[in-house]
Amino acid sequence: MKNYLDCIPCFMSQALRAGKTAGLEDKQIKKLLDEVGMMISDIPMESSPPETGAVIYQKIREITGIDDPFLSIKQKNTREALDMYPELRQLVRRSDDPLLMAIRLAIAGNVIDFGVNKAFNLQKDIEQILSQDFAIFDYDSFRESLRKTEKVYYLGDNAGESVFDRILIEELHKPVVFVVREIPVINDVTRADAIMAGLDKVAEIVSSGSTAPGNVPALCDPSFMETLYQADMIISKGQGNYEGLSDEPIPVFFLLKVKCHVIARDLGVTENSIVLKKSDFKHL
Amino acid sequence: MKNYLDCIPCFMSQALRAGKTAGLEDKQIKKLLDEVGMMISDIPMESSPPETGAVIYQKIREITGIDDPFLSIKQKNTREALDMYPELRQLVRRSDDPLLMAIRLAIAGNVIDFGVNKAFNLQKDIEQILSQDFAIFDYDSFRESLRKTEKVYYLGDNAGESVFDRILIEELHKPVVFVVREIPVINDVTRADAIMAGLDKVAEIVSSGSTAPGNVPALCDPSFMETLYQADMIISKGQGNYEGLSDEPIPVFFLLKVKCHVIARDLGVTENSIVLKKSDFKHL
Repeated sequence: MKNYLDCIPCFMSQALRAGKTAGLEDKQIKKLLDEVGMMISDIPMESSPPETGAVIYQKIREITGIDDPFLSIKQKNTREALDMYPELRQLVRRSDDPLLMAIRLAIAGNVIDFGVNKAFNLQKDIEQILSQDFAIFDYDSFRESLRKTEKVYYLGDNAGESVFDRILIEELHKPVVFVVREIPVINDVTRADAIMAGLDKVAEIVSSGSTAPGNVPALCDPSFMETLYQADMIISKGQGNYEGLSDEPIPVFFLLKVKCHVIARDLGVTENSIVLKKSDFKHL
Repeated sequence: MKNYLDCIPCFMSQALRAGKTAGLEDKQIKKLLDEVGMMISDIPMESSPPETGAVIYQKIREITGIDDPFLSIKQKNTREALDMYPELRQLVRRSDDPLLMAIRLAIAGNVIDFGVNKAFNLQKDIEQILSQDFAIFDYDSFRESLRKTEKVYYLGDNAGESVFDRILIEELHKPVVFVVREIPVINDVTRADAIMAGLDKVAEIVSSGSTAPGNVPALCDPSFMETLYQADMIISKGQGNYEGLSDEPIPVFFLLKVKCHVIARDLGVTENSIVLKKSDFKHL
């Protein structure tokens, strides 16, 4: 997905929010906003939002001198999600359609996101999503692809959310490669975060090489992108991965909660929708 | 009121919204956002938000080559408000407290604002405000000042809203100077807009000299500011005038609906509150 004009004020809001969450002082936040402001004229409208995000969070790292300013938040969210894990597993086991229940939970976990301007209440949001209708629901294709594929590439999104991804991965009953970001960016899941969530017990963990809050082809390892082009089935979590990969010719299912009006418009759904969307490109 | 960090992303949102409302093409809007972005490092945190607004709307005029890009919107809003005028006058006449009803209506008119990110439905918003409790209600002081003053300076805000101001002015039963912006900026009321609303029938119309969306001392005529410092009673409408004048040693009553969280915090009230606030400085 390319940048929309509406993304530009949002970059400033993200920078402000990230600066505050990372604990910067007011003067440092102003410096961050100054630098993001000066960057705007360099943003090509043809690039995708996470590419700009990469630069913003790089600036935050420079200004704070901290590699992972969201570390304690990520750990807190992961712990909170792990506490819920046994109960969520029960929910799946008792469900008439465990795979679908696991998909719903994976989307519910997608509310743990500090890149968008939404407060979240994990318990309440989960309950809501469990009874919400899908705005796009390519479930039959999903099951069919899953049946045929030998391996699933699962593109992680946020730390904490990964515990919910683990539950879905356990219901896939196929070998899974869980893909993480190369470096810490916002609260996106890295290898260390994934291991804390127990992903190493259910999947092979690999890095996409991405330094952006989303797997953007231009910012991923070329060899990783080649793997995606050769893959039979990819599950992509969250907005950042959708923004980065929605125009790529890969057999991907996008699983997300729609948290901004720009992505809602791009998908043709309303904000706050939940989506299981098959890409328009080759599938098994 | 000085700039808060939260104002900075809002400047970008305002620029985007203003560019769209003024009918700019996408490329022109991107250019506007680029220029506003580059301007951010020049924004002193000690200045007030309307001072930045002045520069943003100057850029819109430059890019569009149009002096008053919101003219047709202002005229539409004024016509709509004039259509309601007889009915609103009746409301005041039939009220137990006509002055208070007129104050409520003047605040209700303050929803006609294209500078903030709020859609409005005039009829519905009026009904809501007529039954809403004030978050700050210095009404006794207001009546007392009004009783003693020989003249009232009334600082207008938006075109269309001025019709509602006219109703309040008619209930003041004192000579009134209605103050307008020097040039068109967003949908703020200019002399021409005020005359269309019939203000010339109930008040002397003068310009503050301000080119900002608010009467900011540094951007007003020094002679006008001198008049305010000598005044016995000033009524200030809307957020822009509050932002510009809240720290000035003048005997002012701020009348507004609180439409942003920054001003809410500054006033110590919640968003969407309605406020009749006496300034902390000398009053009659």
